Amino acid sequence: MAIKEYYTPTHVYFGKGAEDKVAEVLKSNGAHKVLVHFGSGSVKRSGLLGKVEAALTEAGIEFTELGGVVPNPRVSLVRKGIALVKEQGIDFILAVGGGSVLDSAKAIGYGAYDGGDVWDFYCRKRKVEGTVPVGVILTLSATGSEMSDSSVITNDETDPVYKRGVSTDFGRIKFALLDPELTYSVSRYQTACGATDICMHTLERYFHQGYALDFTDKISFALLKEVMESAKVALEHPDDYDARANLMWCGSLSHNGLTGAGNETNGDWACHQIEHELSAEYDVAHGAGLAAVWGSWARYVLDVDPSRFSKLGEGVFGESDPVKTIEKFEEFFRAIEMPTDIKGLGLDFDEEACRKAALGVTFGNTRTIGDFKVLDTEDIFNIYMMASGLK
Amino acid sequence: MAIKEYYTPTHVYFGKGAEDKVAEVLKSNGAHKVLVHFGSGSVKRSGLLGKVEAALTEAGIEFTELGGVVPNPRVSLVRKGIALVKEQGIDFILAVGGGSVLDSAKAIGYGAYDGGDVWDFYCRKRKVEGTVPVGVILTLSATGSEMSDSSVITNDETDPVYKRGVSTDFGRIKFALLDPELTYSVSRYQTACGATDICMHTLERYFHQGYALDFTDKISFALLKEVMESAKVALEHPDDYDARANLMWCGSLSHNGLTGAGNETNGDWACHQIEHELSAEYDVAHGAGLAAVWGSWARYVLDVDPSRFSKLGEGVFGESDPVKTIEKFEEFFRAIEMPTDIKGLGLDFDEEACRKAALGVTFGNTRTIGDFKVLDTEDIFNIYMMASGLK
Repeated sequence: MAIKEYYTPTHVYFGKGAEDKVAEVLKSNGAHKVLVHFGSGSVKRSGLLGKVEAALTEAGIEFTELGGVVPNPRVSLVRKGIALVKEQGIDFILAVGGGSVLDSAKAIGYGAYDGGDVWDFYCRKRKVEGTVPVGVILTLSATGSEMSDSSVITNDETDPVYKRGVSTDFGRIKFALLDPELTYSVSRYQTACGATDICMHTLERYFHQGYALDFTDKISFALLKEVMESAKVALEHPDDYDARANLMWCGSLSHNGLTGAGNETNGDWACHQIEHELSAEYDVAHGAGLAAVWGSWARYVLDVDPSRFSKLGEGVFGESDPVKTIEKFEEFFRAIEMPTDIKGLGLDFDEEACRKAALGVTFGNTRTIGDFKVLDTEDIFNIYMMASGLK
Repeated sequence: MAIKEYYTPTHVYFGKGAEDKVAEVLKSNGAHKVLVHFGSGSVKRSGLLGKVEAALTEAGIEFTELGGVVPNPRVSLVRKGIALVKEQGIDFILAVGGGSVLDSAKAIGYGAYDGGDVWDFYCRKRKVEGTVPVGVILTLSATGSEMSDSSVITNDETDPVYKRGVSTDFGRIKFALLDPELTYSVSRYQTACGATDICMHTLERYFHQGYALDFTDKISFALLKEVMESAKVALEHPDDYDARANLMWCGSLSHNGLTGAGNETNGDWACHQIEHELSAEYDVAHGAGLAAVWGSWARYVLDVDPSRFSKLGEGVFGESDPVKTIEKFEEFFRAIEMPTDIKGLGLDFDEEACRKAALGVTFGNTRTIGDFKVLDTEDIFNIYMMASGLK
C-alpha cells in the first residue's frame, strides 16, 4: 500500500471579520507590494475591496489592482497578471473572491515565478517549481481552492477551448481569511452550485480502489450530512451564520485532502473530468455540471462495488440500499434546484455531442479516467448518453 | 465572536513503511546533523532505531543519539539535549517514539534556539521565539503531539515536581511519519491509555462556552465513535491494521485543532489540568488519570448546559439523555480496562490529598481553570472528592 501524504500548511483565520486581519497577515508573510486580484466587480459593489485596500494603505503596503476574473478563469487574464507581477516587482498575490479568482491567482503565482509559458504547467509539459506567495479573502464556499493544492484554468486562446487543472504543493496558499458573512450575498444558484461542488470533492475521494480508512469515511459522511443540511438552510435564509459557516468550512475541508486521508488512492475524479468538458465547451457552472452527470456516473459504475454505495448510504442517510443511495443524492440536488441531467443544464445533447464530449475528455482517445472504475472513451460516451436521456 | 485560527503545517506521511521515508524527508527539510531522540530502549529492541540510523548513514546524514526519555518527560534530560544540540551544531531533532519523546524533542528545540532557561517557557516567564526544527517517527497513538502545537514537560528538579505545558505555533513540527504497524507492539494498557487521551482531546474541545460550529461537532462525534470502535478491536487484535490505523489518525486529528475549529473558544481543558496534578505528583499514566476524573468532572458541570451533553450522546451513542451519556463514556473506559475513579489508579486519596491536589492545580489558589464551567480551588476539590468516592 502506498504511503499517503497529508499536507495542509495554509494558515486559516475563520469567523466574522476575518478579513480585518488582512494587513497584519500580509505583513507577517513579508508582503511589500501586493497584486489585489478579483472578479466581476461584486467585491467593489459590496465595499469589501475598498475596505481591504484602505487597510493596506493604512499599513503602508503598496498594491496594484487586477480585476476581471470570470467563472472558468481564463489564461489570457493570467498572462496579464504575470506581466504585472514581473513589471512591478510584486511579491504577494491577494485573491479577493471565490475559487475562480483564487485559481487565477495561483496560476499568476506559478507563471510569475517561472520564465516560461504558464500554460505548460496545465497541459503537463513542465512541473511547477515555485510560486509567488498567494493568500485569499474568500467570498464563496465552493471549490475549496483555499486549502487545496489545485488550480483549474481555461485556455480561451485555442479552439476548442481547454479546461485543465494542475495539482502541486506550491498551490497550498499562505493564508485564507474565511468570514462566512461575506457569503451572505451569494445567489441561490451559486450557493447550490457551491454546495454541489463541496459534496463532489468528498464523493470523488470516497469512491476509489484499494484500502479505505474507516475514520476518513466517517468524516466524509459527517461532511456530506452537514452540507446537505446547511445548503437547504442557506437557500431559505441566506444570512444564517451557522449555515454559511458550516458550508464554508465544509468547502475548505472537502478539498484539502482530509476526506481522502489514509486511503490507498486519491480517488476517482471521473465526474470532474466529465464535467470539465461541459464547462469548458459550454461555460456551464461547474457545480451544476457535476450534479447533472453524477447520477449517471454512479449508475454506470455501481456494479464495481455496490457495498461501497451501501456504506455511503448507511453513513449519510441511514439507508443501505445502493440504488436508493444514488436516488437520495439526486433528491438532494433537486431540493437545492440543481439539474440531475444534461438537459437541466440547458443543453440539448444528441449522440454526436456525446461522442464529441467523450473524445474531449480522453484527449482524443489517448487516456482513460477514473479509479473506482477506469473509464475509456466508450464508457464516457455511455455516461453522457445516460445523462442526456438517450440510454 | 473571536476569529479562530487553524494552522496545521506538519507534513504527514501515513501508511505501512512510512518510516522508510526518513532520510528523504530529513534531506528535503535541509537536515545535516540530527539528534535522534528516543525513550526507554523499546525502539532499540524492535530494530526501528537501527533501521532509522542505517538509513541516515546511507544518506550521509550525521547524527547523535539521545535516549532515556520517560513518560511524563523530564526537564533534566531536556537540558542534556539542549547542550548536545548546541555543542555539536545539530540542525534537526528527530523524535523516534511516542508523545513523551516528541514533547521532550520540542522542548529541546525551543531551548536550543534560545539562550535562556528552557523551563521559563513552561512556567510562562518567556514566550517561545523559535525552534530547531523537529520531526517524528511515531510509535504510539495517544498525545497527538505530532500535529499539535503543545508540549508538556515535568520539572523533576523541584519539590514538589511540576508538570507544565506550552502551546506555540513553533510546536507544529516539520513532518510526522505515521506507520500504524509500528504501534502493533504497544501494550494493552498503553493502547487503552492512548485511546482515552485521544477521546479527551476532542471532549475537552467539545465542552466550551459560546458559539459551536455544527460541522466541528459532527467531526468530533465521528472521531469519538471511531476511537471507541477501534480501541476495542486493537485490544483484542493488537496487529489489526485497520484498528491501529484509525487510532493513529484519530490521535493526530484529535489534537491538531480540527475538533475545535470555528468554535468560540479553545475548549475546557479542566480535566487535563486536574489530571496533570496526578501524573506530576504520583507519576500515573496520563490517559488513565483522565479516565479516572472525567466522569466526576462531567457530573459536576452537567447543570451548566445539559443540552451539550445531550447533543454529544445523540451524536455518539444515539442516546440523548445527558446522564446516560456520561455513563456510556464510563462504560467505554471500563470496557478498555481504564479506571473511572482515583482508587482505580491505585491511589488512596483522603480529604487532605484532595485539598492538596486542588491547590496544586490552581497554583496555590492563584488561578481558575475550565471554560465550559470556570472552576476554582473549591470546585476542583469537590471533583477530586467525587472521584475519590468521598462525595
